Amino acid sequence: MNYESILSDRIKEVQPSGIRRFFDILEEMKDAISLGIGEPDFVTPWHIRDAGIYSLEKGFTKYTSNAGMAELRREIAAYLNRRFQLQYDFAGQIIVTVGGSEAIDLSLRCLVNPGDEVIVPVPSFVCYGPLTSMAGGTPVLVETKAENEFRLTADELRAAITPRTKVLVLPFPNNPTGGIMERTDLEAIAEVVRDTNIMILSDEIYAELTYGQHHVSPANLPELKDRTIVVNGFSKSHAMTGWRMGYVCGPKEIIQQMLKLHQFGIMSAPTVSQYAAVEAMRNGDNDIMKMRDEYDGRRRYLVEGLRRIGLPCFEPKGAFYVFPDIRSSGLTSDEFCEQFLLEEKVAVISGSAFGPGGEGFVRCCYATGMKDIAEALTRMDNFLTNLRKRQARAQG
Amino acid sequence: MNYESILSDRIKEVQPSGIRRFFDILEEMKDAISLGIGEPDFVTPWHIRDAGIYSLEKGFTKYTSNAGMAELRREIAAYLNRRFQLQYDFAGQIIVTVGGSEAIDLSLRCLVNPGDEVIVPVPSFVCYGPLTSMAGGTPVLVETKAENEFRLTADELRAAITPRTKVLVLPFPNNPTGGIMERTDLEAIAEVVRDTNIMILSDEIYAELTYGQHHVSPANLPELKDRTIVVNGFSKSHAMTGWRMGYVCGPKEIIQQMLKLHQFGIMSAPTVSQYAAVEAMRNGDNDIMKMRDEYDGRRRYLVEGLRRIGLPCFEPKGAFYVFPDIRSSGLTSDEFCEQFLLEEKVAVISGSAFGPGGEGFVRCCYATGMKDIAEALTRMDNFLTNLRKRQARAQG
Repeated sequence: MNYESILSDRIKEVQPSGIRRFFDILEEMKDAISLGIGEPDFVTPWHIRDAGIYSLEKGFTKYTSNAGMAELRREIAAYLNRRFQLQYDFAGQIIVTVGGSEAIDLSLRCLVNPGDEVIVPVPSFVCYGPLTSMAGGTPVLVETKAENEFRLTADELRAAITPRTKVLVLPFPNNPTGGIMERTDLEAIAEVVRDTNIMILSDEIYAELTYGQHHVSPANLPELKDRTIVVNGFSKSHAMTGWRMGYVCGPKEIIQQMLKLHQFGIMSAPTVSQYAAVEAMRNGDNDIMKMRDEYDGRRRYLVEGLRRIGLPCFEPKGAFYVFPDIRSSGLTSDEFCEQFLLEEKVAVISGSAFGPGGEGFVRCCYATGMKDIAEALTRMDNFLTNLRKRQARAQG
Repeated sequence: MNYESILSDRIKEVQPSGIRRFFDILEEMKDAISLGIGEPDFVTPWHIRDAGIYSLEKGFTKYTSNAGMAELRREIAAYLNRRFQLQYDFAGQIIVTVGGSEAIDLSLRCLVNPGDEVIVPVPSFVCYGPLTSMAGGTPVLVETKAENEFRLTADELRAAITPRTKVLVLPFPNNPTGGIMERTDLEAIAEVVRDTNIMILSDEIYAELTYGQHHVSPANLPELKDRTIVVNGFSKSHAMTGWRMGYVCGPKEIIQQMLKLHQFGIMSAPTVSQYAAVEAMRNGDNDIMKMRDEYDGRRRYLVEGLRRIGLPCFEPKGAFYVFPDIRSSGLTSDEFCEQFLLEEKVAVISGSAFGPGGEGFVRCCYATGMKDIAEALTRMDNFLTNLRKRQARAQG
């Protein structure tokens, strides 16, 4: 069979994620340190795991309702109200999804017609562009800037809008930059989209991980609420990546359409995970705060360390990444990551994996223990020192 | 906001599933019996749940590799070889998915270009048409016939093929008819597609539930192997619906493309479910056989009972449904289901929910206890007797 001619055009165009590029090399290495994958190093808190265990002991192993257990949707609605002052009706405005990933995919498939444009601020997580393309749309990448603390500005947005713009993705708090959008930033965005039909897809998976200020959702702004779809989940806030628990909230008219696709393409999110998630919502707020405090300590330490060894570094306000500027090394981001891994056995991710705006930066994840972060800094210092010596010799 | 103009054309065209139509009424009823939802009444066997529990106790709560744990893919490959003589390489030809549903969606999205046609034999499970439409394709429904035991014949297939045909779905053992395809049936199909580029999407989720003969996959035929994508999972064979554990196997060139989409849209299947699935593959063959024997007893009892009360009935060869012909009642399938539910409080599903070929039939699921099946038969007898009396009175 000639599979090339059989595969859909869209899937052929999709590029694989650059994040996992060096994982195979990394896995073979002894004494390697990974500041690579964006995943909490914490195990899911025991009481949450215990709720999952209890559900299995009781034999709750069947499908739930397509949108997710009513009990869980009620808890999610209460949580969003309690922690973010967001109001959603559990009965018609929330679907429990397989992580935030499925929620993003569902949203794009239910909004995008072939030829529609989706504005994606970059650097950002790698899925928005490919999932837009798979839905037949065209991703329009807008580079955010370090000098703007990687916020999306009204001017940048305005310049990107065309009559075909259907969706604006707001990936804040941002992976990989750590940038956030404050209320005034969102008000400026609201002003730009006011007389358009543009929908906002707000990926708030890192909403609980902000440092120094509370997360603000576009759905907190009355003028944006009706046009906003909020994606969130348990992966980062409750260290629950493997459970695949996310949710999507928004206007009932949109959510009920998304439910049809969720029903045919997924059926329902995993049942054991839903029981664990109920417990996370009911009794997990302290876990969130404990983990956030721990991340915050590492964040300060890592930023300070990177600056000390000579890498300029925007102080991240959210998520669990630092995004140092490595241009002074004279290397591209890819070269930096490859040489650093091979010479010093530390994995960081090339900024260019997160879109064109990421070139010249690397992503260092601090969801890893302090000891490893300290050792990674020592090795990075070594790496830069040796690199500079070699460069001096080559010039001399 | 005018959401009607904002939603994608494709999602607006998708009709919600007719299966769950009466569920709300049913939930309110006391003493109701459901032969409705297609889900094992068994709880997942204890040793499988215990493996999930153990993984949670050990703290295995992170992402797995995108394709699923290598250990699980190895076990799936061994299982497929052991039970169905199918050979797939765990490293490149298998992706662990969120149930069979995600596997079907992935397959269609990676094969179908806008305008391509997908041949769907009906009556069949409700997702193929909508997921084809969401991928931009056109479902071409081919009605299978009771007189052919609901098999897809070579002539029916030949008549449906056009230059735009991209995929043939083979949903056997079939939900809702209980029809299967034997080797000779598949050989006839092979002959028809031989000089085409048509891919086969074989949904084998009921492969373990056949009665009297072993399941044959199109991938068992050397002349079809290269063009076949096999979808299977743990939901029906191991009573694991709520875990959302499925997988898709096929040519490496196709599977590796599908992995890109799975990575962006799902990330990885739930980790606790993967650990449970490893145990299911290693030590679950006896569970399968015990449950199948139990289903087989119910199947014979239900078929016999339906025939006794006057409903002609094809003897199902697979899955866990009986699909009696209710045309002698003078009611449409929808009328039959609604009146039967309201008068006798028994839920069965209208055949028309499974495509145009299903009108005149209803689906009775026998994945429910013998006592309920017996009571449902008594009530159906009542229902038909009363119905005939009323009809006689109306004519007299």
